[in-house]
Amino acid sequence: MNHDTSGKRPITLLGLGDMGTALARAWLAAGHPVTLWNRTPGRAEPLAAEGAAVAASVADAVAASDLVVTCLLDDASVLAVLADADLAGKDLVDLTTGTPGQARARAAWAEERGARFLDGGIMAVPPMIGVAGSGGYVLYSGSRPLFEEHRATLAVPAGATFVGADPGFAALHDVALLSAMTAMMAGIAHAFALVRDEDVPLKDFAPMLTGWLTAMAGYARGVAEHLESGDYTRGVTSNLAMMVRGNATLLRTAEEQRVSPELLTPFMDLMRRRLDDGHADEGTTGVVDLLAR
Amino acid sequence: MNHDTSGKRPITLLGLGDMGTALARAWLAAGHPVTLWNRTPGRAEPLAAEGAAVAASVADAVAASDLVVTCLLDDASVLAVLADADLAGKDLVDLTTGTPGQARARAAWAEERGARFLDGGIMAVPPMIGVAGSGGYVLYSGSRPLFEEHRATLAVPAGATFVGADPGFAALHDVALLSAMTAMMAGIAHAFALVRDEDVPLKDFAPMLTGWLTAMAGYARGVAEHLESGDYTRGVTSNLAMMVRGNATLLRTAEEQRVSPELLTPFMDLMRRRLDDGHADEGTTGVVDLLAR
Ligand SMILES: NC(=O)c1ccc[n+]([C@@H]2O[C@H](COP(=O)([O-])OP(=O)(O)OC[C@H]3O[C@@H](n4cnc5c(N)ncnc54)[C@H](OP(=O)(O)O)[C@@H]3O)[C@@H](O)[C@H]2O)c1
Ligand SMILES: NC(=O)c1ccc[n+]([C@@H]2O[C@H](COP(=O)([O-])OP(=O)(O)OC[C@H]3O[C@@H](n4cnc5c(N)ncnc54)[C@H](OP(=O)(O)O)[C@@H]3O)[C@@H](O)[C@H]2O)c1
Repeated sequence: MNHDTSGKRPITLLGLGDMGTALARAWLAAGHPVTLWNRTPGRAEPLAAEGAAVAASVADAVAASDLVVTCLLDDASVLAVLADADLAGKDLVDLTTGTPGQARARAAWAEERGARFLDGGIMAVPPMIGVAGSGGYVLYSGSRPLFEEHRATLAVPAGATFVGADPGFAALHDVALLSAMTAMMAGIAHAFALVRDEDVPLKDFAPMLTGWLTAMAGYARGVAEHLESGDYTRGVTSNLAMMVRGNATLLRTAEEQRVSPELLTPFMDLMRRRLDDGHADEGTTGVVDLLAR
Repeated sequence: MNHDTSGKRPITLLGLGDMGTALARAWLAAGHPVTLWNRTPGRAEPLAAEGAAVAASVADAVAASDLVVTCLLDDASVLAVLADADLAGKDLVDLTTGTPGQARARAAWAEERGARFLDGGIMAVPPMIGVAGSGGYVLYSGSRPLFEEHRATLAVPAGATFVGADPGFAALHDVALLSAMTAMMAGIAHAFALVRDEDVPLKDFAPMLTGWLTAMAGYARGVAEHLESGDYTRGVTSNLAMMVRGNATLLRTAEEQRVSPELLTPFMDLMRRRLDDGHADEGTTGVVDLLAR
């Protein structure tokens, strides 16, 4: 067992990829006793020099601290690494990205083994970890007692946000945010494809685009209000009829600029379907209905 | 001819839809002599009560001011309205949304008729017009002398930003921003589709989503730097290999939540294509290349 001379909670961390390494550094820098294990042992060496204990086996690593954190490639690697570990009485925090279903299954699996479980979704890249004010944070769900007890420790690498007792909720929120970001990146790619061959200074265009997307990101609030009230016309300033008309201009411009419209057409098709269903006065919230399988 | 007793430039405005009406109110409120014409005359009546002159014909309206502003449905309606107008010596500002090609054609057409021409793309909805600090603005391109001469007048309804002498550039920027926003809205729809049937408080989820998109909108700067330098690996923290791996989690989650992935897959397919072409260390900028026709 780690000797806690610092008053800070001892932590065992399994997984020293880019993210695990950043997490280890943050907890070490904050004075936590840290025990590390990684499949490829060499990756722990620089951290040993920074004060970490390096365990020779998963069993040794898990035995070293009550709080065990995993940050591995995927859920399958978590299962592989912890298959034979004695988790009885442990607090397991899984910072490996996965689906809500995987997190729920892992939670049930951990509980069967006598561990409390918290799933985490890291909304940051490694350079943001341990940097106050970076804006990065980790979404947590599962055991609220575990979260409350380790709150200060969990807040060391990045802001800690609890999103529910359902262990799948951290992954659900994580994936929802990443999915929306992915679509935004698609839009950014399309926008640059339109302007890149023109004499447009891209270094001026980029902040204009960032500013516009930032100003429009609040659109999410209106969608939430629509879904909660069931009235998809509430507070709509640009209605579906206008937007579908506008889409024709976006598509014609893509054609003029010889840019494939493939990143825009699926959404435009759903807007058109909703309009044809008689919802001219709505915004785009009806598309959420059309996405349900 | 309008009598300018205010020291403010007289303006003729053709088109009193939602946007034209908001523009008229902003200029009237700022003390400009305003002459109005609309195809359906009734729409000018309330504005007449607020001090606007109402012209009986397009010819009368155009004759009333040197500065003529159009805010009509589309380029075809601009052509229809101005077909027989005497534009010699006029300054024509077209705030009708269109494509870069339409703006360039309209500029050449206006020049043949002896008018200076400025195209405008309104990045605002009517409630933002004339409201200081609303964040709305109008992109202008075409005659810079016209822009400079009327700058103060043009800045009355919303901030005025000149983006180039090429008359197509306002529309090009406008459509690029709207296209990116459309994709972001698609992502917002997908995100809500994932969480809506779960016990997630949407009024808490919405600001989280807005905050995340706002934080990530700066991604555009990296894309601009990649395109300008030709080095698409520069400063990449999440590379294509990681992102494509992550896409599998996004797709599996969509499946778990019974949400169609159709708004995400076209971009994911292009990311995969670029990865397969041997660009694992890049970000997503290579997709911009793949969109070129
Ligand atoms: N990097 C980011 O920007 C970021 C952001 C948010 C969330 N995350 C999440 O954080 C987690 C780790 O990411 P990362 O960037 O650190 O990944 P990474 O650099 O690819 O590291 C992967 C880690 O998993 C280990 N691993 C893989 N398969 C294994 C197996 N079968 N058995 C044992 N260990 C195995 C690797 O060990 P070896 O060293 O032996 O290969 C390594 O420690 C992922 O779930 C990722 O989605 C990452
Ligand atoms: N509203 C917005 O949120 C917004 C935002 C940015 C840009 N814009 C752009 O601003 C422009 C006007 O938008 P809006 O919202 O004011 O549209 P709107 O409310 O639909 O009004 C359309 C206007 O065009 C006139 N019109 C249409 N066809 C005509 C024709 N063939 N001949 C003569 N007049 C014709 C209409 O006259 P009648 O009254 O006789 O029908 C009306 O004045 C559009 O290009 C739009 O894309 C609007």
